[in-house]
Parts: sequence; C-alpha cells; structure tokens
Amino acid sequence: MLRIAVLGVGRIGRMHAENIVAHPRATLAGIFDVYEPSAKEIAEKLDVMRFESTEAVFASPEVDAVLIATSTPTHADLLEKAVAARKPALCEKPIDLSLDRVNACATKIAGSGVPIMLGFVRRFDSGHRAVREAVENGTIGELHQVVITSRDPGMAPAAYIEMSGGIFRDMTIHDFDMARFILGEEISQVSATGSRLVDRALMEKCGDYDTVTVVLKTASGKQCMISNSRRAVYGYDQRVEAFGSAGMAISENRTLNHLRLYTESGTDHAAPLMNFFIDRYADAFAAEISAFVDAVEQGKAPEVGFEDGRQALLLAEAAIRSAAEGRTVNTSEIG
Amino acid sequence: MLRIAVLGVGRIGRMHAENIVAHPRATLAGIFDVYEPSAKEIAEKLDVMRFESTEAVFASPEVDAVLIATSTPTHADLLEKAVAARKPALCEKPIDLSLDRVNACATKIAGSGVPIMLGFVRRFDSGHRAVREAVENGTIGELHQVVITSRDPGMAPAAYIEMSGGIFRDMTIHDFDMARFILGEEISQVSATGSRLVDRALMEKCGDYDTVTVVLKTASGKQCMISNSRRAVYGYDQRVEAFGSAGMAISENRTLNHLRLYTESGTDHAAPLMNFFIDRYADAFAAEISAFVDAVEQGKAPEVGFEDGRQALLLAEAAIRSAAEGRTVNTSEIG
Amino acid sequence: MLRIAVLGVGRIGRMHAENIVAHPRATLAGIFDVYEPSAKEIAEKLDVMRFESTEAVFASPEVDAVLIATSTPTHADLLEKAVAARKPALCEKPIDLSLDRVNACATKIAGSGVPIMLGFVRRFDSGHRAVREAVENGTIGELHQVVITSRDPGMAPAAYIEMSGGIFRDMTIHDFDMARFILGEEISQVSATGSRLVDRALMEKCGDYDTVTVVLKTASGKQCMISNSRRAVYGYDQRVEAFGSAGMAISENRTLNHLRLYTESGTDHAAPLMNFFIDRYADAFAAEISAFVDAVEQGKAPEVGFEDGRQALLLAEAAIRSAAEGRTVNTSEIG
Amino acid sequence: MLRIAVLGVGRIGRMHAENIVAHPRATLAGIFDVYEPSAKEIAEKLDVMRFESTEAVFASPEVDAVLIATSTPTHADLLEKAVAARKPALCEKPIDLSLDRVNACATKIAGSGVPIMLGFVRRFDSGHRAVREAVENGTIGELHQVVITSRDPGMAPAAYIEMSGGIFRDMTIHDFDMARFILGEEISQVSATGSRLVDRALMEKCGDYDTVTVVLKTASGKQCMISNSRRAVYGYDQRVEAFGSAGMAISENRTLNHLRLYTESGTDHAAPLMNFFIDRYADAFAAEISAFVDAVEQGKAPEVGFEDGRQALLLAEAAIRSAAEGRTVNTSEIG
Repeated sequence: MLRIAVLGVGRIGRMHAENIVAHPRATLAGIFDVYEPSAKEIAEKLDVMRFESTEAVFASPEVDAVLIATSTPTHADLLEKAVAARKPALCEKPIDLSLDRVNACATKIAGSGVPIMLGFVRRFDSGHRAVREAVENGTIGELHQVVITSRDPGMAPAAYIEMSGGIFRDMTIHDFDMARFILGEEISQVSATGSRLVDRALMEKCGDYDTVTVVLKTASGKQCMISNSRRAVYGYDQRVEAFGSAGMAISENRTLNHLRLYTESGTDHAAPLMNFFIDRYADAFAAEISAFVDAVEQGKAPEVGFEDGRQALLLAEAAIRSAAEGRTVNTSEIG
Repeated sequence: MLRIAVLGVGRIGRMHAENIVAHPRATLAGIFDVYEPSAKEIAEKLDVMRFESTEAVFASPEVDAVLIATSTPTHADLLEKAVAARKPALCEKPIDLSLDRVNACATKIAGSGVPIMLGFVRRFDSGHRAVREAVENGTIGELHQVVITSRDPGMAPAAYIEMSGGIFRDMTIHDFDMARFILGEEISQVSATGSRLVDRALMEKCGDYDTVTVVLKTASGKQCMISNSRRAVYGYDQRVEAFGSAGMAISENRTLNHLRLYTESGTDHAAPLMNFFIDRYADAFAAEISAFVDAVEQGKAPEVGFEDGRQALLLAEAAIRSAAEGRTVNTSEIG
Repeated sequence: MLRIAVLGVGRIGRMHAENIVAHPRATLAGIFDVYEPSAKEIAEKLDVMRFESTEAVFASPEVDAVLIATSTPTHADLLEKAVAARKPALCEKPIDLSLDRVNACATKIAGSGVPIMLGFVRRFDSGHRAVREAVENGTIGELHQVVITSRDPGMAPAAYIEMSGGIFRDMTIHDFDMARFILGEEISQVSATGSRLVDRALMEKCGDYDTVTVVLKTASGKQCMISNSRRAVYGYDQRVEAFGSAGMAISENRTLNHLRLYTESGTDHAAPLMNFFIDRYADAFAAEISAFVDAVEQGKAPEVGFEDGRQALLLAEAAIRSAAEGRTVNTSEIG
Repeated sequence: MLRIAVLGVGRIGRMHAENIVAHPRATLAGIFDVYEPSAKEIAEKLDVMRFESTEAVFASPEVDAVLIATSTPTHADLLEKAVAARKPALCEKPIDLSLDRVNACATKIAGSGVPIMLGFVRRFDSGHRAVREAVENGTIGELHQVVITSRDPGMAPAAYIEMSGGIFRDMTIHDFDMARFILGEEISQVSATGSRLVDRALMEKCGDYDTVTVVLKTASGKQCMISNSRRAVYGYDQRVEAFGSAGMAISENRTLNHLRLYTESGTDHAAPLMNFFIDRYADAFAAEISAFVDAVEQGKAPEVGFEDGRQALLLAEAAIRSAAEGRTVNTSEIG
C-alpha cells in the first residue's frame, strides 16, 4: 500500500483524497491545507491525520508520496521540496504560469530520479486513450489530422479568470497536452487566434480571450486543431478526433444519462453533457491515481511527467505570442 | 422500354405513375381512373393517354403491363383480367380483405405464367434489405429473434378506418410480409393482442384496435415481435431488428434532415421522423418499379408475388382469431 | 451510519459489501458466508468482522440491518429470521423459486413493519429511471406500449441453468419487475413463448428455454413486450422503450467506452456493450444501497418491496403456464 | 416552364441536365459540348436538341437561360456572353482560377441586371441549411465558432490535380463559401496551413497540398475552422458545426444506408459515408435548380451570386498567401 499525503484539499484535492481512500493499493497518509478549517473538516470526515505544515509532510516517515493540489504558485516550490525529500509526487497542472520558473525548477530537480507525475487527467480517459491506441495500433493508418473540441460548461468566476494566467495557460493547456498525447511527436509550429465573445468586458479587463482556435503542426506535417470556449450551455464538450490514412477515431461526449426522447418536436433527444470535470473525468481521475501508484511501486517513469508539463506550457507561450502577433510561431522561438 | 399503364391515380397511383415516367427502362403507357376529373388532371399533367375503361387498358397492344392502384375491392378482379389479357401486373396490397376471395383468385390464375407482383414496398427499402442480407450472408449467424416496430404518424380518417378491414389486415399486413421476408421461413404460430388507446370511440365503433402486439413463431422456433400503433407523434416509426447467434442488424428510422441540436435542454436532438410512407419509402417505391421491370423483362418470377400476398393475409386472419380467442393460433388452422 | 451485515459473499455479496464500505451513510457491520475460506478472505480484505452464523448476525446489537445475498433457497428463511430479529433487510431476488413458499413467507412477515427491500437493481439505473420519470411526468403522454430488450452476454454454466428455476423465474423476472415499474399498473394478462436456439441440448435436458418472448397487458390495455436471449455476442443488451400518446422514451445500451471508429468497412463503430451486470449496473447497485439506507433511516417503505418480488414471481408462473399451454393466461388464475 | 440549355455535359453537366428534365417548372432546351460524341450521346439519350456552338445557344429564342458546366477556363467568357445575350445563367464554381480575370468579368457584367447564380450546391443541402437557419433564428444564440469538416473520399486523378489551381481554389473554395453562408458576415482574417500527407510526390510536383487547415475570423471575432483532406477512406466526410451562446447545431454525415450492425467486434456499426458529391448532394443539386428557376421567374437576385464566387476565390488567395508566408492574412490585402 502506497501511503500518499494530499497537499491542498480544495475541490480537486478533496476528490483526489477520496480516490486514494477508495484505491485498493493506496492509503491516505494524511492531508495538509493552509486554510485550517478546511483541513480540519476533511481530516475528520476522512478520518486521517492533518499535517501542520508541508515540512511536516515531507519529513514524515509515514508518507511515501505526495499529491500536490495546492494553488498554482506553490507547485514548483513543493515539487522541489518533494524531490529534496525524495518523495514521489503527483502534481496538478500547471507547474507554474511562468516558463522561467518551470525551467528553473527543471534544472533543480534534474537527475534526481524521484518520480514526478503531472496531473493531465484527460490522458486517462478511456475514450481519449482508445483514440491514442487507434493511432498507435495503426487502426487508422498514418495520422494526418487531430481535432480537439474542448469547451467548458460555464465561465469561471471573474476572480479565478483574473489569476488564471489566461485561457491558453489555464484551459488550452489540457488540449496542448492532449494534442501531444495523440500526435505522438513534438509540435513545431503554433498558430492561434482569440476572441472575446462570451464576456467581453471581463476579457478586456484581463487582456484575455474566452473563445480561441489554435492550429498546431508537427515537423512531419501532422495538423491539430483546437477549439475552445469558456461557455457551452449544453454542458462540458470534450471531443477528440484523430483522422488518418486508414480511418478516423472519435472519442465522444458523455451525457448525464442514457435516455433518448422522441416527441412531436424531434427525436433522439439526449440529456445535456456531464458537467463538469470532476464528474466527466471521474473514471480518469481514479485511473490517474492507479498510474501514479504503478509508477512509484514499479520504479518506472510516470506516463506523463514534468517535461510534459513544461512542453504544454511552452505551447501556451507560443500560442500567446501567435495570437498577439498574427503569425505562426515556431516552438523553437520559445524557451 | 416496358410500357406500363397505371390503374387508379389516387395518391399512391399518381406517385407510381411519376416513378414510371422517371424510370430509365419504363414508360407510362397511360392511366385510368373511375373518377374522371382526377384521371383527366393526371393525364394532362403527365402528358399521357387516358383510358376510358380497364377493358380498354387490357385490350391495348400499347400496354405491356399494368400497375393496379385502384381501391382494394377491385384488386382481385383486375388481377384476374390482367392474367386473362396476359399483362404482367404489379398490384398494391392487399389482394382482397377476404381470404376466400384471394383463394378463389389464386385458383383462377394458377399456372398462367403471367408475372404477378405484390406491392409490399418495404422489401425494397435499402435498410430493411440490408437486414435481410445480414441474415442471408450469415453476418449475424443463425437468426433467433426479429423485432419489427411499425407505427403510423397519425390516425387515418374514420372513413378509411371503417373500410380498412381492421388493423391486422390493413396495417400489420406490411409487417407480416416483412416478418416473412426477414425470417426466411414460414410462420407456424401467431399470437396477437389488441388495445384501444389512441381513439377508443372509433375503435369500439369499428370493432377494431389501434394498438397491437403480435408474436410469430416458425417451426424451428424463430420468434418475431411486431409492435403497431396508429399514431406516433414523432413521425413514421419504421424499424426492423434481427438478432442472431453472431450478432444483430437494425434498420434505423429516417429523420427529416441530418441536423443535430444541442441546447441547455439537451443534446443530439434530431428532427422528427419522415412522414409518411410516400416520403419514407420514396427510394423503395422506385426500386419496386425496377424490380417489376426486371422480372417482366427477364421473364422471371417477381421477388414478391401473389402467394406472398395470400400468406400475409392468412397471418392477418390468424392474428384476428388469436386476439379474439386469447390463444396462440396455428397457421394450419387458417385457410 | 447504518451498520449493515452482508450474508453471503459470493460475487454479488462481495460487490454489495464493497459498496457498503464506500457508502457515506453506511458501514459494513460484518459478513457471513457458509463457505468459511471465502468468508475469511473477504473479512480480511475488507477488514471487517466475520460472523460464525446467521444467528450471530441477527443477535448482534452492532448490526442495524442485513443484506441477503446467499443462495436462493435460503432467502425466505433468512427474511423470516430478519423480521423476527427486527432487522431491516435488503434481499437479492428471487425470494424463492416456489410461489407457495413466497406466499407462506408473506403470511409470516405480514404486518411486522420491518422494512424489507427486494434487490431489483435495474429500477435504480439512471436511464431506466429516466424512462419511468418520462412516463410519470407525462412527457410522453399516456403510456401505450413498453418494449423491454434484455439479453445476457453469454449462457450461464449448465450447473447454474439447471438450478435456476428456468428462464422465466431466473432471467425474465427482472423484466417482469421492470415492466411493472414502467407500466405503473398491475398486469392482467400474460402471453409467453419460448424456443431452444442457443443451446438446444442443455435446454431439452432442463425442460427450459434460452430464447423467449413475453407479452403483458394491463386491464386498461397497456401492452408490454419482453425479448430475452441467454446469449448476445455483442454484450449485455439492456434497453427499455416506453411509447405513449405524446412521444417515446428509450433507455439506451452502454458501451465499454465512448470511442467511434470510421474505416473503409464502415462508420460510427462503437465498442461492444458492457458485460455483465456488475459493470453495467454498477451505478445502480450503489444507488440501491442508498435507497435502502434512506428507507431504513427515514422509516419509510422501501421503493421496491416484498410484494414486488411476489408479483414478479407470479408473472413468471403465468408465463410458464402460457408457454406450456399456448394461450394467454390471466394473472388472476395464479396464486 | 423555364427553358434551360446546358453547356458542357461532362459528369456534372449531365446530372444537371437530368435534373432539369425532371424539374416540374423547367425544361431542357438543349445541350452543347465541345466534344461532339459526348454531346450526341446525351442529346439522344435525353431526346433534346444538340447545339453546334455556344453562340447558337445564346442566339436561340428557344433558350430562356443557361447552365454553365463547361471546363473552368471557359466560365468567365461564357458568363460575359450570357449577360450580353441577356440569358440568366447558373454557373458551376469557380468563376475562374485567376482573381484578376474574375474582377475583369465583374466589371464587364456590372449593372446588367441579368441574374447570375453560382453553383455552390452545398448551400442547398437540407442539413447545412438547417444549421444556417438555427443561426438565423437565434436557436443557438449569437454565433461564436463554426467548424467545417470537408474531406473527399479519394484523391482525384493527377491530371485533374495539376489543373485544379491547388486545393484552396479547387476544394476549400466550397468551404469558404459555406463559412460565409453560416457566418453571415464578411471574413477579415485568414490563416492557413497545408501538408503533403496523402500523396507527397504528386503534391511536391504540383506545389500543392492534400491536407489543409484554415482558420477564418470576422471583424466581430467569430471564428471558423476548416479541415480538408483529399482522401477519407470511410467516404465523403461533410460536416458543418455552428457553436453559439445558446447552443450548437451540427449537420451530420450521410451513410449509404440506415443499417446498424452489432457483432462480437463492436456495436452500432454503420455503412461507409456516401461517395461522392453527386450522390451526397443529389437533393441539393435538385434544390439548386429550383432556386435558379425561382430567381429567374421572380426576377430576384439569386441566393448565391457572382460576388459570392468572387469572395470565395478571394479567400482562397488569402489562404494561399497565409500558408506560404506563415502569417495571418487580412482579406483587405487581397484583390
């Protein structure tokens, strides 16, 4: 049993803590949160130890590994501390909003051999994985185009948006990782455009976009289109399409139930899409914990690591520059 | 070019006449209708000869074959005349509402060698045919169960219902033929039940049902369920499912267009189903004419002949008895 | 926290035990199984008490309620003991294969006020429930027809089949309950037919069928068709269709993932259906525990009780008689 | 009855000629083709007059209007002649591969008042039109993003590709028009990228691409993504998705029939997509003729006119420049 401590028990950290409790090969070694009332509540509810500080966590011989679900600005520091303490870590994305900070962190932890896994949970979705497998197995032949549709069910609160680092670093970053996952080769060119269509006032205030389109290209010419919106009223729209020389594989959306309705106004009417990521990717979050446990127990590199987090951020930087300058940006121009 | 005269130019006859005009290997030799204004209008519109009587049609050397789309009580007489005149005939279903009359007709035309084809148009639907092919090719292995859903989009006018011979002879008869088509072997047992749920008053007046369920069984144990309703508000519901030892084949419904709508109230919302048979089976009606032309030109037996019409009526009689007596009726008990 | 002991930890009992462990308002009070090695393994794995006998369970003040997942012949006895001990019970179906035994049990426990819930898990499936709600809310108007397709992914072992009481009591019983759930009124007539198409030799040996069709009718004329097969190679086929005066609601099947494949040989190809009930109805089993906890905690009658189990068995008896005698059987003729 | 002559009876011209024959308010006034054997064959088959020259067509008082389906380099000349002869014309796309030639033609025919319609047939597809209506009616709120997937079922012959003017002018041009149709406002920015993945050797020889992605943006920020490939092995992939503030509308693909297959290897397997445009857009081609007849008879501007053809070509030019220079091109830079 891998004893994992969870750092940060906001909405995501709490979900992870429950998944660890339910996991057959992991136990929850304890939790920490800077906001004490929250930490106390969760520790009591899950009947686990509450650590007083992250230092206490890293010092504890009862903790084999950590799951970092604190606020973004603390991720890089905690990763460095985890490596120093030789505790394998599963860290929520992004590593940091600053590519410089990420690069500095990379330098610091390089060669440590301590397993670091990045929380790009969508890689563990059974549908998206099946698309990746269809590419790897040659089921769809040589890959030519990837189309990723990724739209949130509703705009996040203004306070969140303002701190998010912008849509490319906050939201598209998942799609950049998905693109890399499906494409299976590094991306050389990025072309992005953004609009303010959902909440113009907020976007202008933040210098951000709520609706973006990104086109990626690999050196061999494979293309990937990403379509993002901060608000899809019909639910959390999460589709991945891979098109190749021998066919196409699509990971479809998931509706709230499996009912279909037929009335005078139409047929085959399904429920809205699942809303939001904690529900839509519930299975994937559980699978992610399993993958982390496997990597640590078997001493192998996690399926999605630090460098994947860095590459996704790098693509975000390229997209920001592309949208600002109205040109295709080569990834070699960035960091 | 096969020169075909159309007898009866009501809604169906007119549609057939237009299909003959459009057919590359057939021409419309003329039309006849007892209601002269209607005949005149169609003859003028399609720029073809109007015959003064059916006798004139059968006597004409310019007529190679006839399509009988007159009212049901005239079908058997016209078939007998067609055979006497040695004109191949494509006759709308049913041959007659009376099994005795059908049997008498059968005796009269037996051995003539004149091709008689019955208008069970659904056999020519590409989806339903693909189900039949999946059965014949062994794609779904040995056939075990057939499920036919067949619901009209709205109740026919009371005057029509009163003259229809009842739902089993008028509506289910298409499904009896479809069952025989898909099952590929004769039916030995019939079990039927009827209800009055759509228009109770009218049904009580006519001693008829508007909602029926029929279960058929072959000697080898293959089962077929038929579900009928006189009114499906979402359109003309026409599905055929064949289940076997190696899989299942389903012929799906057709919607008015290929739009899918996603809104706050739901996803994947399609248009209502096509309404009604002239639209839904437009391709099948055209293919039916082709099959008739092929049979006549190549001197082979039509794919669906007089005996198929008789067998379908026999199943209707068995269903009527089964529903009345609350028991499974062996088809050997009937005519 | 409701403290529930699980009696019988075979495949289903074990799954229930795990669901109780994971339930936020229930705890696993312990387990019992006549087969000691199995009991020891599970007790150790789940870290709970192992009871030496059912008597010990019923006597324990640490046990608030029981879940009966032992072999069928023990169900009625255990229910009687549970009632005597005033322990609410959630009992797997069927109560017993003998209607007489069920009736005797009913007499014995009548008026006790101890909540007894029957494990008709499909009532708790979100899709099937949504169909029921569409009926109750009037979304599809007045209900006219119900079509239940229920096919197992593969034949159970011969030893199981031989002890099962026959397909109507063992398999269709779930569909009888679903029919009652969706119809919302009692069934007055049953018409059934069976065939031996999947494994003729085994079926002949057991005097059983592997492929059956059942038609039910209520006093008001509502119709329900049930289609069963012991083996659907494409997976566990579980569909419920309700057709009414204002529309139709369908609870669709669930595939293993959400991939769709497009190749030269075809399009929109999905994975096989989930296989088998423990996976397909995983959510429903969890919801069933919640419903039991709710009923006990709130002192209200469980949503699906002893009488529902008795009625389903009564319909099975009627179906057996109908299939044997080739006639529609009135439920008033039975029990 | 509008008497229409067809110029050019290759594959498309012939299909148009047959549609005119079948049209209730149009007649085929005759045909012309520079290749005499072909012209003779069609004239005989359709039993219509064969003109000896285009001059003869334009001079004939028996010709009310013309349909131009000759080779691309002749389109502009014939349009000018048609206008000079005051014969309304329906002209296949593109007007010309050279924007200069198109602009010159525009100048020449300006203010003539002779109706000119461009053959952007996809505008008349019932599914795509339903998407446009969902945008216009406000069903999906304010439009934010459009996604057009448009993949041919197979590479055209090398000789065709070499003369085609390149993928943007030959294939994407349909999608540029569709984008304008759905967006409902002019496009200000174009960003395109192309790859050689299907037939690298041929593409290198022609300086062309076989796989392209284009992103369009309007002044108000609406975005449109176009995904093209010269070869989709599963058939002719033609989807249009419109996403807005209140929902999404998708025009789905069409399969060869309505069969769904379920076997051990998977479920819900549909036939390949229709192949190719003459089948897929058969209804649209017929509706296009109707729209032309309507426009001429009612003396109103055709729904899709010369300027639409010019704008689509202008977008193709912008895409070519964008792909070559790796930057977003403003449409104001072109023509």
